Amino acid sequence: MSSGVAVEAARVVDAGDYRVTIGAGLRHDLGRLVAAAAPAHHYAVLTDDDVAPHYGAALQAGLTRHGRVTMHRMRAGEAHKTRETWARLTDELLDAGCGRDTTVVALGGGVVGDVAGFVAATYMRGVPVVQCPTSLLAMIDASVGGKTGVDTAAGKNLVGAFHAPAAVLIDVETLRTLPAAHLRAGLAEAIKHGAVADAAYFARVEALLPLVLAGEPAATLELVARSVEIKATIVRADVREAGLRKTLNFGHTIGHAIEQASGYSLLHGEAVAVGMVLEARLAERIGVAERGTAREIERVVRAARLPVARPESLGPAAVLAATRHDKKARGGAVAYALPARVGAMAGAERDWAIEVGDSLVLEVLA
Amino acid sequence: MSSGVAVEAARVVDAGDYRVTIGAGLRHDLGRLVAAAAPAHHYAVLTDDDVAPHYGAALQAGLTRHGRVTMHRMRAGEAHKTRETWARLTDELLDAGCGRDTTVVALGGGVVGDVAGFVAATYMRGVPVVQCPTSLLAMIDASVGGKTGVDTAAGKNLVGAFHAPAAVLIDVETLRTLPAAHLRAGLAEAIKHGAVADAAYFARVEALLPLVLAGEPAATLELVARSVEIKATIVRADVREAGLRKTLNFGHTIGHAIEQASGYSLLHGEAVAVGMVLEARLAERIGVAERGTAREIERVVRAARLPVARPESLGPAAVLAATRHDKKARGGAVAYALPARVGAMAGAERDWAIEVGDSLVLEVLA
Repeated sequence: MSSGVAVEAARVVDAGDYRVTIGAGLRHDLGRLVAAAAPAHHYAVLTDDDVAPHYGAALQAGLTRHGRVTMHRMRAGEAHKTRETWARLTDELLDAGCGRDTTVVALGGGVVGDVAGFVAATYMRGVPVVQCPTSLLAMIDASVGGKTGVDTAAGKNLVGAFHAPAAVLIDVETLRTLPAAHLRAGLAEAIKHGAVADAAYFARVEALLPLVLAGEPAATLELVARSVEIKATIVRADVREAGLRKTLNFGHTIGHAIEQASGYSLLHGEAVAVGMVLEARLAERIGVAERGTAREIERVVRAARLPVARPESLGPAAVLAATRHDKKARGGAVAYALPARVGAMAGAERDWAIEVGDSLVLEVLA
Repeated sequence: MSSGVAVEAARVVDAGDYRVTIGAGLRHDLGRLVAAAAPAHHYAVLTDDDVAPHYGAALQAGLTRHGRVTMHRMRAGEAHKTRETWARLTDELLDAGCGRDTTVVALGGGVVGDVAGFVAATYMRGVPVVQCPTSLLAMIDASVGGKTGVDTAAGKNLVGAFHAPAAVLIDVETLRTLPAAHLRAGLAEAIKHGAVADAAYFARVEALLPLVLAGEPAATLELVARSVEIKATIVRADVREAGLRKTLNFGHTIGHAIEQASGYSLLHGEAVAVGMVLEARLAERIGVAERGTAREIERVVRAARLPVARPESLGPAAVLAATRHDKKARGGAVAYALPARVGAMAGAERDWAIEVGDSLVLEVLA
């Protein structure tokens, strides 16, 4: 595919300080697009052992005409999203002689994007990062909004920084190499975008699901582009998550807790799928959501072949305990982003963060 | 001293997004001032083993009426300004149950301020920090400008973030407990402020030196306040160090290199003192500085009883090699902030960063 075709076919979403370009075949022109968005003397590509064999060499070759290029790999998976990986990659860049005139290129899924973004955020007090997400989750969620970070034993994303990318470059064709379970997990965030902000899109996601799971490019591009639009609109309105952006945490308080309590044996999207169903039930239980909201969400989650219940191996008390380490906890109480109905969130008058007592949460977890 | 007196006597400098309050006796009212600047449910005081015995208990007591307070200590000294210390302190805050509604309070010298600032910058993607500097260096340099970070084996401050404090609260009386060598080292930065931006202040620093070294409060307050003003003015104009702020790096390219090559056996200010003298000579040697500039700077550095020459144990080649890891290196070449004369910097047309070849640097180091 020629570079002209790749760029012509692309959709561009304005995310405020940067643009998200979504196309089919963009990877063939990625070096040029990265260099145009964040010109540098040195391009440090951060990727992982799963993604590098597919797309590493082509990106490296494409960047070589624009500057020095070095490749830096981490092991794949959430278990390696740690301060230790961040420190090792930072030291690799220092050893490679990267100065402030370096652009970090994140090539991979959400874990690579988060770690590489945090490396860039803290490298000599910040160098640019271009996000090139290759998983559905990273495309529609992690790559937009500037959140970067790593996990600790105490929980997910507890250490990190806001560091907006210079650009986000998405080639939906890279989803062909994504394992099916990860593709389904990414759909959880698309369902969330509909549930949180757009009932029409929620219905459209349900219709697109089988096509996206079958790898149909036009359907995938439509879903990614609309999800990115919704997320970018919310993030532009509230970069620092002081208010509206909290609505994107729907499903994530219980979701993170399940993910952590399971030792990350569930994928993030799988945990969020369960979290959305249970938090929607919680919302109905405390009377902020219309009756039937949880059932509707559960139906679409099931259609994506995602889990709808807490793993039996995790007791309700263990999950509840894990919610206490959530960043959204304030003054000891745990706050939730809860729906009013499909397409609209509750709690605007409470900054979109609704505190719920332990006994009610346990009831829903039981 | 009553709180009314402390606040009345204070000078306030506008640093853009935050204010720097400088007074004599402020520590007696510090808890209230911290809570007013950055109200939170939880106050996490980060300090070190040297400072805690002097000022820790009073701050803790003063904060207790405003929220939960926990104290977190690191060992004193640049050798402990590491990712390991940062990670340990972060984990202590997590274990203490600190949520996003936490204000970090940095109580100590430049090392504590840098580490605590970086903990705050990266804790749950950023919580407020109030800087309460207790060393002269931290008062007039490190606490203003939002630079935070830690060192790695490859060099100083290579990992970090820009994170502006919510407020800076300076009690010049805390300098009474500062060792004399550290007081002198701090004066290096005051000399730098004069050399970089204000010839009249440069002369005034020379006059104030003996009084400040003798612990005279009015002289100390004048020096701290004017240095903070100069630094705040420059930083407001260029927070991200894209241009003008680079002038504050005068003395720091060779200074950092000497500091690092010595294994941090020199104090930062001592290394910067040597760096200013040598870099001023370099500026004369390449013809950007007026003749006599280096001699004038050397005279005042000597008056502060600070070193003016490279330690004999460090060879010129070792120092030169260490400059290569400087963050200011671009495309392989090392850039310097060099004076035109006392009170004015050279290189405005080159973004205040002047590249100098190795042979000239070696000549000056020889």
